[in-house]
Amino acid sequence: MKPSALASSVRRGDRRALAMAISLVENGGPGSAALLRSLKRPTRTFVLGVTGPPGTGKSTLVDRLLQFYRKMGLRVGVVAVDPTSPISGGALLGDRIRMARHAGDRDVFIRSMASRGWSGGLSRATSQVIQLMDAAGFDIVIIETVGIGQADIEVVGVSHAVLVVLMPGLGDDVQVSKAGLMEVGDVYVVNKSDLEGADAMVVNLLGLVRGLKSRSAAVVKVSAASGDGVEALGKSIEAIRSKLKAGDRELMLRSIKGMVVETARGELMQKFGRLSDSKADRLAGEVLAGKLSVSEAASRLAK
Amino acid sequence: MKPSALASSVRRGDRRALAMAISLVENGGPGSAALLRSLKRPTRTFVLGVTGPPGTGKSTLVDRLLQFYRKMGLRVGVVAVDPTSPISGGALLGDRIRMARHAGDRDVFIRSMASRGWSGGLSRATSQVIQLMDAAGFDIVIIETVGIGQADIEVVGVSHAVLVVLMPGLGDDVQVSKAGLMEVGDVYVVNKSDLEGADAMVVNLLGLVRGLKSRSAAVVKVSAASGDGVEALGKSIEAIRSKLKAGDRELMLRSIKGMVVETARGELMQKFGRLSDSKADRLAGEVLAGKLSVSEAASRLAK
Repeated sequence: MKPSALASSVRRGDRRALAMAISLVENGGPGSAALLRSLKRPTRTFVLGVTGPPGTGKSTLVDRLLQFYRKMGLRVGVVAVDPTSPISGGALLGDRIRMARHAGDRDVFIRSMASRGWSGGLSRATSQVIQLMDAAGFDIVIIETVGIGQADIEVVGVSHAVLVVLMPGLGDDVQVSKAGLMEVGDVYVVNKSDLEGADAMVVNLLGLVRGLKSRSAAVVKVSAASGDGVEALGKSIEAIRSKLKAGDRELMLRSIKGMVVETARGELMQKFGRLSDSKADRLAGEVLAGKLSVSEAASRLAK
Repeated sequence: MKPSALASSVRRGDRRALAMAISLVENGGPGSAALLRSLKRPTRTFVLGVTGPPGTGKSTLVDRLLQFYRKMGLRVGVVAVDPTSPISGGALLGDRIRMARHAGDRDVFIRSMASRGWSGGLSRATSQVIQLMDAAGFDIVIIETVGIGQADIEVVGVSHAVLVVLMPGLGDDVQVSKAGLMEVGDVYVVNKSDLEGADAMVVNLLGLVRGLKSRSAAVVKVSAASGDGVEALGKSIEAIRSKLKAGDRELMLRSIKGMVVETARGELMQKFGRLSDSKADRLAGEVLAGKLSVSEAASRLAK
């Protein structure tokens, strides 16, 4: 199928075309550049990033949010960003189970994306899938990360709102990463609210949130497993989404800028990977010969 | 202290100077460039990368290897690379415990490095710490990663040998990531050898290893907890290290090239982060105004 025909099919909401288009941009095959150029500016879809440490129940929570939005009649896409190295297996199995559960629902589209290499491919692909889902008319795209590393930072940039999912018992870790943690969330979710320490964690987070100068953030206690508190969480997300619907320019720009930056970063890294190999071989030889230090060789390679 | 004086102290094996030097290059403060330039080509230290999925017991295994090398009278550095996002807490606490255990041993130097942002700072810092530990006369530097994401890939490049630590029960994941997994390891370690399925996993891995065309790899079963099999593992690592000691040019170049590439990548990303912000704001505005697609804006930003 030609890129322009594929783009038209995506815009008509053809699921098969969407799946094909996503594969095309993920693999960067011929026609992917033309396909992406033919997409209009992304403004329709609300991008919700969900992040937090492993084991806090993000997938279950995303499932609850999916149900929340489906009850409202909204079309929801889910991108499970799995910065899997070739070494770890990642969350693929869990996603397959989730996909099966929603297989009958044509207004839900779930895509798992695993990065199998360096080169910035993941950040680029995530931005591109958001654009495609936007073109396909999805109301919400939820981006879920595994909660470790670079991909979590990247998801902050492309989202209109970021949920940071925590749970009782993470106390020490939260202390350790307090500064950074408080920079990224729009809503802090204390999941597994039946566990001891949940209320104390909420109080602690509320104190931190009150100390924020440049922006506001909410704290919500939920049990994704039982569904308790999910309604309240949904409402605090809706408060942000309503701004997007009202055409809040700053909010629209936030996600667009993030997509531009992440796509550019991915492009740069891929270009670097292609160009650097033979030059790096030569420079490494010069380091070994004692002609250059590693740092000097690296500076030359970066040029 | 002047960079040249600091470098001399590092070369004399002064631990305090080494710690200062590492902090200096990690923070990229003034003098760090001069310090790095003053380092000679890294050839002495054997760099051992240890990676694998979370929960496979890498830290315990690294501790065993530390003991293995200390019994041989070798000086060992450990770099725990923790690609912690601001969001997850990471393995810092575990490292503090480990550090306390070896606090009295002046021939062990343990450093935990957490990345708190994007920008490629971690890969660059890891390479630089290797260079500093080499200058300080360490025989072995063990680089341990948490087993998810980009940092794992990067560690492969800078290492002379890579251990991939697995455990029984990962079967499915191993299947999923088979292709990538088999690209990186020099030694595949089946840890927790007392668990059911350990032997089957060894057989499975041996089959995969035999299928490798471009290189050889070993498979070793251990129990890091009890110490069983650690001696045999140590021997298969020593087989690789002996090549380095014999001056194997290819092996020396492997790590040097990795350091050059990762340092250059880090430099590029940091430069990109500094330069791109205002330009990205402007380009995002043009996307919102419908003048550019995200992909076009990204291409301009990448230039």
